[in-house]
Parts: sequence; C-alpha cells; structure tokens
Amino acid sequence: MKKILLATTILSMSAGFAAADVSVSGDARMGVVSTEGNSVFSSRVRFKFSGSGTTDGGLAFGGSARADNAGGASGGTAGSVFISGAFGKISMGDVDSGDKASVGQLASVGWDGAGYGNSISYAADGGLLGTGNDGDYAGTGGAKVLYTYSSGALTVNASTGQLSNGGANHQSYGVGAAYTTGGMTLAVGYGSNSIEATDGELEGATGSITDISASASYTMGATTIKAIYQDKSANVSYEDADLDLGSAVSMGASVASKIDAVTLTAYTISTNVTSDVAEIDVTVNRMGVGVGYDLGGGASFSAGWAQIGAVDGASASKMDVGVNFSF
Amino acid sequence: MKKILLATTILSMSAGFAAADVSVSGDARMGVVSTEGNSVFSSRVRFKFSGSGTTDGGLAFGGSARADNAGGASGGTAGSVFISGAFGKISMGDVDSGDKASVGQLASVGWDGAGYGNSISYAADGGLLGTGNDGDYAGTGGAKVLYTYSSGALTVNASTGQLSNGGANHQSYGVGAAYTTGGMTLAVGYGSNSIEATDGELEGATGSITDISASASYTMGATTIKAIYQDKSANVSYEDADLDLGSAVSMGASVASKIDAVTLTAYTISTNVTSDVAEIDVTVNRMGVGVGYDLGGGASFSAGWAQIGAVDGASASKMDVGVNFSF
Amino acid sequence: MKKILLATTILSMSAGFAAADVSVSGDARMGVVSTEGNSVFSSRVRFKFSGSGTTDGGLAFGGSARADNAGGASGGTAGSVFISGAFGKISMGDVDSGDKASVGQLASVGWDGAGYGNSISYAADGGLLGTGNDGDYAGTGGAKVLYTYSSGALTVNASTGQLSNGGANHQSYGVGAAYTTGGMTLAVGYGSNSIEATDGELEGATGSITDISASASYTMGATTIKAIYQDKSANVSYEDADLDLGSAVSMGASVASKIDAVTLTAYTISTNVTSDVAEIDVTVNRMGVGVGYDLGGGASFSAGWAQIGAVDGASASKMDVGVNFSF
Repeated sequence: MKKILLATTILSMSAGFAAADVSVSGDARMGVVSTEGNSVFSSRVRFKFSGSGTTDGGLAFGGSARADNAGGASGGTAGSVFISGAFGKISMGDVDSGDKASVGQLASVGWDGAGYGNSISYAADGGLLGTGNDGDYAGTGGAKVLYTYSSGALTVNASTGQLSNGGANHQSYGVGAAYTTGGMTLAVGYGSNSIEATDGELEGATGSITDISASASYTMGATTIKAIYQDKSANVSYEDADLDLGSAVSMGASVASKIDAVTLTAYTISTNVTSDVAEIDVTVNRMGVGVGYDLGGGASFSAGWAQIGAVDGASASKMDVGVNFSF
Repeated sequence: MKKILLATTILSMSAGFAAADVSVSGDARMGVVSTEGNSVFSSRVRFKFSGSGTTDGGLAFGGSARADNAGGASGGTAGSVFISGAFGKISMGDVDSGDKASVGQLASVGWDGAGYGNSISYAADGGLLGTGNDGDYAGTGGAKVLYTYSSGALTVNASTGQLSNGGANHQSYGVGAAYTTGGMTLAVGYGSNSIEATDGELEGATGSITDISASASYTMGATTIKAIYQDKSANVSYEDADLDLGSAVSMGASVASKIDAVTLTAYTISTNVTSDVAEIDVTVNRMGVGVGYDLGGGASFSAGWAQIGAVDGASASKMDVGVNFSF
Repeated sequence: MKKILLATTILSMSAGFAAADVSVSGDARMGVVSTEGNSVFSSRVRFKFSGSGTTDGGLAFGGSARADNAGGASGGTAGSVFISGAFGKISMGDVDSGDKASVGQLASVGWDGAGYGNSISYAADGGLLGTGNDGDYAGTGGAKVLYTYSSGALTVNASTGQLSNGGANHQSYGVGAAYTTGGMTLAVGYGSNSIEATDGELEGATGSITDISASASYTMGATTIKAIYQDKSANVSYEDADLDLGSAVSMGASVASKIDAVTLTAYTISTNVTSDVAEIDVTVNRMGVGVGYDLGGGASFSAGWAQIGAVDGASASKMDVGVNFSF
C-alpha cells in the first residue's frame, strides 16, 4: 500500500519548491512454511521508497527501491528508475523483460507464494531454466532497460540487457504485446539471451536460449482465469556448426476468484523438458491451491499448498499459512 | 524518538484509504570510547522504519526495521513483526526470549553502554555464555517467536526458537512472568537452548544450556533500583550418560536516578563460573557508573566508566563520553 | 532536493513533542556511459535520510545517511552526525578532511561526473594517490572528525583521523582556510597521513604522505571559474634515515556557466609524478567538457566527455549522457 507523503506538497504550495516527492511504504508477514513436512517459522518486514516528479514539459519521472536492496539500487541491479511521456515509458534497473512484462505469470497461491511454483522463467529476464522462480536480475544477462508503449487496447513492451560487451558478454532482448478487449487479454512475447566466448579454444562459440510465450486471461466479475504457454529452446553455434541442446515446453492455467473478503486461487502447470543430446525426456508437473481472507486495514490471512518440482511422479510439496500486512 | 507521519492519516480521512501507517525515526551519536586507555572517536547515525495498522476486527499489527539491518529484516533475522489483540501479542523476527523479556537487564551506563557490561546473556535468546553482551540473534538458536500476554498486574512471556530441524537442529524456548505491585516489579524466567548431533559418531548426543533467572525492581519517584540473578548450567547427554559441564551464576544490582535534567546510573554484577570437568572456578566482576544530562530537543550528553570482564583481579576498563541525538 | 517532512512539526505544535525531525529525499539517474568506446546502460536510485533538531540551549544537531550506506553509517564509516553552535560545527563519520573541505575540487562534468577526472585526492581524506577519485573513507586513515568555524568572510576547517592506535595505526590530520571577498574565494590547506610499523623488523618505520593545496575561484554573474594547485609528497623515515619517495604536483582549472536552463562546464588538470627512487617522471593530463539542461521539477538532462588518466600521450576517454532526477 503506497502512500504519498503530503509533506512536500504542502511545502511546495507555500514556497514554490519543486514538486518532486518521496513516499515510504512497507509490508510484513509472519507465518509457518512447511517443505516436505519440515516446518519453520517465517517472517519478514520490508520498507520501500518511491520518488516521483514531473518536468516543466509534463514528463513524469520516478524511481523506487526497498531499504533491503538499497545497495543494489545504488548500483543499478535492484530497484528501478523511469521517465514517461507521450513517447511511452522507459525504465532502467531491475526491470522485467519485454515478453515477461506482457505475458506475465499465472496467479500465485498462499502466504509467501508457496514456493512460487506458479512461475515460468523468461530467458531475456535472466532466467535460463525452464521452471522455477523467475531469475530476475539485471546483472546476469537479464533485462536492464524496458520500454513500454500503450495505445488504446494495445500495450507493447521491449527490453534489452546490457549493451555489447557490457556484463560478461551477454546479449539479451525481449519483446511482447498485449491486447485487451472486454474482459479478455491476449499476450505474446519473444525473448533471447545469448553469451559468446570471446577467447580460448572456443572463441566465437555462442550459446543462446530463446523462448516464445503466450497467455490469455479472462476476467468475469471477481473471477480471473488465465492460461499460459512457453516454448523455450537452447542451442550452441560454433563456426558453421549448430547444436540443438533441447527444449522446455510449459503449459498451465490458473484461476483466482474473490467472494466478499475471501480469495480462492489455484494453478497447474506442466513443463516438458526434452534433449536429444542429453537423452532426456521428463515432465515436471506443478500445482497449487490457496485461500486468502481480507482482514481489513491492510492485513490479510492466507494459506496455500503447492506441489512444486514434481518430476515424473517424484514430488516436493510446500505448504504455508500466515498473515500479511501492508503499511 | 518515534514520530507518526501524519501524511497517510490525512489521506485516509479524505479518501477512505486504509489506516496503515509508516513512520521514520532516527538516532545518532558522536563521542570518544576508551578501552584500556586506547581511545577512539566513535560515531554512528541510524534510521528506523515503523509500520502499524489495525484490522477491521480491531487487531493491531505492525512491523519495524532499521535501514542498516533492512537486509536481515527481509530475511527474518532482524527487525520484527507483530499482531496483537485480546489474545495477547505475537511477535516474530529478532525478538527477545520469553525469560529475557520478563527479567530484563540491569541499567546500562554511559554514552554507548560502556561495553554493555551490565547485561547477562539468556540461553533461549541465543546467548550461550554467562557474561557479556546478549547474543540476540534469531538465526542461531535464539528466539524467533515471542508471545506476550498481560492481565492486570501480571505479564507472561513465552518464546520459541525455530521449529524442529529448522536452523541447524537447535531447539530453544523461554518462559517468563512479571508481576507489578506499587512501584515493585518481580520477575522470573526459565530458558533452554539445545543442539542435537544428527549424524556422525555422536548421533543423538544433545548439548543443552538452561538458565533460571529472576529480577526485582523498585521505583520510588525518579529513582529505580534493580537486582538480578541467573543460574545457568550446561550439560551433554548421550544415550544413558549425562555429563554436567558446569554452571555460571550471576548476581547484580543497579540504580538509576533522575534529578531534573541529570541522570545518574550505576551497576555491579558478579558471575561465578565453575566446572568440575574443566577444573575451573573463576569469578568475573563487572561494574559501571554513568551520568547523563538532557540537553532538550532530543539531545543528551552522557559519560560512563565500566570495568568489564574483570577476571579474578585482572581488569578491562572502558570509558565513553559523548552526545546522543534522537530524531 | 531535500524536503522537510512537516509531520513532526505539526505533532510538536499540538502536543509539545520534541522538535527533532526526519526527512527523506532521493535521487536517481538513467543513461549511457561509454569508456574507451565500450558503452553500457547505467542507472541508479538512492534515498537519503536527514535528521535534525535543536537543543534547549540553541545548539543545532543532526545526522544523515543514505539507505544504501546505512550499514556503514551505523558503524561510523558512512553518513555523518554533527552538532553546531557559536563555537562552530563538529562533524563525525565520513567527513571531508579539513584541507579538502576548504580547497575543494574543480567543477565536474557530465551525467555521472564522466569518470570524476576533475578531482584530486587529499592525503588526510584517505586518498593517497595523486590523481583520480577522492578516496574518502573514514576507515582507512581518512578524516573521522571535522571541525568548521566561520567568522565573517573567513572559514576554517580542521580534521583528524582516528586517534592514536585506532584504525591500523594511521595518523592523519588536515587543516584549511578559505577567505571570500566579493565574488572571489581564496583557499589553502595542508594535510598529512602517516602509518607506523608497530612490530616486525621495521618497527618504528613511518611512511607519510603530506600535501599542500590551494584554490582560487571567482564568480561573476552565472559564471564561476576556479583554479586549483596541489603539491603532494611521500617519504619514509626509519631511525635517523629519511627517504624521499617522490611527489605529485597537480595544477588545473575549471569553468562553469549557467545560461537560462543550460549549464556548460569544462575542466583541465595536469599532474606531474616524479620519483628519484623509482626513476619516474610522468605527467597525467585530464580534461572534460559537459553540458546540462534543467528540465524543471527536479529533473535535468546532461552529457559529458572526459579524457581521464591520459599518461604522456596514452589516453582513456569516457563519455556519458542521461537524465538525473531528484525527489
């Protein structure tokens, strides 16, 4: 829950100060997380700064960072800064890749996301594996700059990682588009993340991961359903040779429904990883269900259960229950 | 000195926003610390966030962290989060153990606590040694969850460390109670912190430290006197064998008196460490005196002298002098 | 752009609270930095706390730290705390050395300082080399305490590092004075930073770096020109022997001019490093030009080009362009 501190506004009214503003908000949680039956108490409290302003020419700008990642935000790998106007919005820092910003993730469940099994990783976002939490980090080939432009029902996102030779010779970019009509939003995206060997025996060899993603979501009253699809493939090219390392294809769906103070959420997602080179053909199934109850005043109770990283029958389950606060 | 930012309140009055709130306060100090005659300039400045709110059902909740330990607060090992109501108050994070919360510490002296020689450590709080600064850390067997319940003159505290198998197989808990009548407060507490070897030759061997503590304090006008007692013992059990490693018994007293802007403080505490196994029988005496002067506006001057860790005649003295500010 | 949160003030008016205050401000930037033709996106966002108050006796006090260096500020190596009155101002923490505070630096250019080639290092500030960014760090022999006193046109600064034997046996101090008449400011300073071997074969050997610095700046309307000079020398003394290790002499000038919303800046500085012992005699030339444009509301656009660390013809160039925001 973000709050605009009125302080500066009052000052600026009386003394012609610049209109730029800083607000501080926070979130906290306390609960129990159980992984494969092993339970631990879990808690955290975090605070976030948000700065915003407007130029004389009407461009909006701002920046935000949490107190706990303020060091990264000072170095450009956490938090973000933006400027926006009729031309769209340009963000830098720990931003989403263009395809991720458009296609998004399935609904999460539970108190702390119950293991975040709902998410897929995007190559251009720095996430190279097919499953698990999104590897969002500006420093390792992930998106560093995100450009967003909206016109009517259409929103386009495009991102790039660091420029050539910046950041360990990674090169990445992602593009995405989303179109909304009625309660329906359709989104597609494409991302690429490659790294080139610049010396040694394999100089010039390039390893790359690319993915094409799509999602469709439909909101009817207080219920939203969403389906997601991603086809990710990895290959290495060296001189004239080109080696297909394999692919990971994910398909999933989620539903979230709010009935008065109660929110029900569920997702299921399946990722098929195949590789002729490694002679692999496995399917990872993940699913989760969750319930939330709005306690009012910025507090909510929630609980979730998820089966994450279940490879061909073997299973890893995670359960959580607790309260979330926002200040 | 904490301050409630009015900002959100004003917003919520006008627009029905949630009543949750964030305030920012700070403290700073500058002075000179002299340890065994070796003097150094010492300074610091810290800022603290406090979030608070109330659910629709009337439960109060909140969380706090300092900017300098925001990383730990995000991971649950610093700062804390709480929810409270008629049932009492539950806190998680870097909380006191139940016995420590009830029994407390003697009055500290000087500008930066003059070495904190006034304090005893509590086993359930993560502090395993008999003397010195309290080893308060949620990550190493110390208290993770604290429950407090008050009814009239009686306040009960109970804490637990991480659940079984969480955090390096530590298990800890602490309970305490305090009763106040007139200017007198009597408190008792019990704490236990054990660690079990889960593999290797000594699998099943358990080392544990337990302590029973008590304090009595009496306030008359602007003067408070306090006496404290703690009996801490360590033992190892393996199969049917039980080995007494020794004990540390501490006894001490302090007095703090405020005369107009001047505060005078003094403490003395003695810890007798005995171990038949190690053939040890030493007594550590610590004492300190301090003076403070309230400069007004959140500033104060203070100076202290303490003899800390003086083992059987050998002495380590510490002196400090400086100003403290609170914002 | 700092802002005073009115919150506490309002509280104190209505309820007699202490007048101490905390404000939060921020800055952010996004742009491109090009070093020797290798370009990278660069961004950051930072937030800063400032606490202030006044004692009943009229002394002003305060402290400040950024969220990203809050850890250092808690340990005394970042941020700073001060108290001031008719006697002057005493600051502790990551403060400037006395000579640096008086003599200062040339104008910087560009969006992120374009490599900070404009600056010279001050021995008493922890910066031991003749060129490059100022090695301002309270922990390594740099200034820990700064005293400032102004009387009419004269301002005197004096600093000291940690006291004897504090901080790896460094001893440092710096003194400076600045005199302003009309648009002209003349400043001189002297600094010394030495380290003594306290054991080993060379016990008693002392290495020291001293520098004498001077600057003159003249402001006419919206244009300021500044010239700077520094003679730094290093030597080692052991018993009766005294070895001259060499010297670094810097001379430079800068100009900054503001025409409506446009700011133009340029500097040039030359450092001659000579050492009979090492048989070195090299001259490092640095120069830079920059342009800024005030976008209003706390935002500005800027670009700079600098040739930094150019040793006897060899050259390292840096270019940057981007926007800066302040909240």
